[in-house]
Amino acid sequence: MTEALTAERVLEAAEDTLRRFGPGKTTVVDVARALGVSHGSVYRHFPNKAALRDAVAERWLERVNARLWPLTTADGSATERLRSWLEQLSTTKRLMAREDPELFATYHALATDSRDVIRVHLDTLAGMLARIISDGVSQGEFEVEDPHRAARAVLTATTRFHNPAHAAEWEEPGLDADFEEVWALLLLGLASGRR
Amino acid sequence: MTEALTAERVLEAAEDTLRRFGPGKTTVVDVARALGVSHGSVYRHFPNKAALRDAVAERWLERVNARLWPLTTADGSATERLRSWLEQLSTTKRLMAREDPELFATYHALATDSRDVIRVHLDTLAGMLARIISDGVSQGEFEVEDPHRAARAVLTATTRFHNPAHAAEWEEPGLDADFEEVWALLLLGLASGRR
Repeated sequence: MTEALTAERVLEAAEDTLRRFGPGKTTVVDVARALGVSHGSVYRHFPNKAALRDAVAERWLERVNARLWPLTTADGSATERLRSWLEQLSTTKRLMAREDPELFATYHALATDSRDVIRVHLDTLAGMLARIISDGVSQGEFEVEDPHRAARAVLTATTRFHNPAHAAEWEEPGLDADFEEVWALLLLGLASGRR
Repeated sequence: MTEALTAERVLEAAEDTLRRFGPGKTTVVDVARALGVSHGSVYRHFPNKAALRDAVAERWLERVNARLWPLTTADGSATERLRSWLEQLSTTKRLMAREDPELFATYHALATDSRDVIRVHLDTLAGMLARIISDGVSQGEFEVEDPHRAARAVLTATTRFHNPAHAAEWEEPGLDADFEEVWALLLLGLASGRR
């Protein structure tokens, strides 16, 4: 008897197929062929190619989130947690891009086409940041009126260090210095009422 | 008698040719043909294709700078000048992208290949910002140790609003709200010693 075709198995096969053919050339038929099933069976889990693409992009971004949750919910100085969180986000993306630039470009292209998936991802990231910033307010480290607005500002202001559109700049020698400058200014902004 | 072939005329012809053929397909021979001269005459001004490409990218970025100088050297509140300057930078890029998206993509591709030209452009922009920030320190609006570092931080933190890598996001409805959030946080950071 064949193994049941779960959405999870379809996603794994879709990732393998994308890795081999790239996003432009991967079809649902290719994915079905890799699984040894009819394309109708794939469509039972994902009603169309866009749904499958979104699910693959989402799964990829989930891997990024997974590394950030422990830092989000940790105890201790909010300033240090914020710093570690931002470094972790940038480092995770940078390592992914360095290890397999083609696959990274593929995922980036997928995600770019999945605006809703990106929006949810950015909301999740901003939610994590808001939690750290709120803790910082409770602990007297930050003075911020609206932690959610501040979280979005921090996320947008660090775009260059985590948005794949800037991957080509991530190996430039001045990157760490640029990060330090932005970090220093953001921290002053967050802590401004405390000085 | 034919008009003398100046570097300026070569650049104009190069822009026209790029507009028609795109950056991948434009050759020095095409530019020479448009001018009715031999490609040797073009090479007398630009020793190779990369030099011509850099000069075209530079000229394009100069147009952006030209709109920013008046705001850089204006009198009055440094906070207001900083705000106008950042808005002008974003608006100029946004209008260019909206008016002729293909030409904008062409210039962006050219500039991406001209890392040195981009570096000089970013240094020029940071220099303008540093001047406004220094004025803000003298006028008691900002408290910043190193205006040049703060200027680079402001430029990097606003990447999403002026870097052509984000052009696809510039028509999104939340863009202005995102800018306001980043602006509020940066301003707090710059003024932090003043509160």
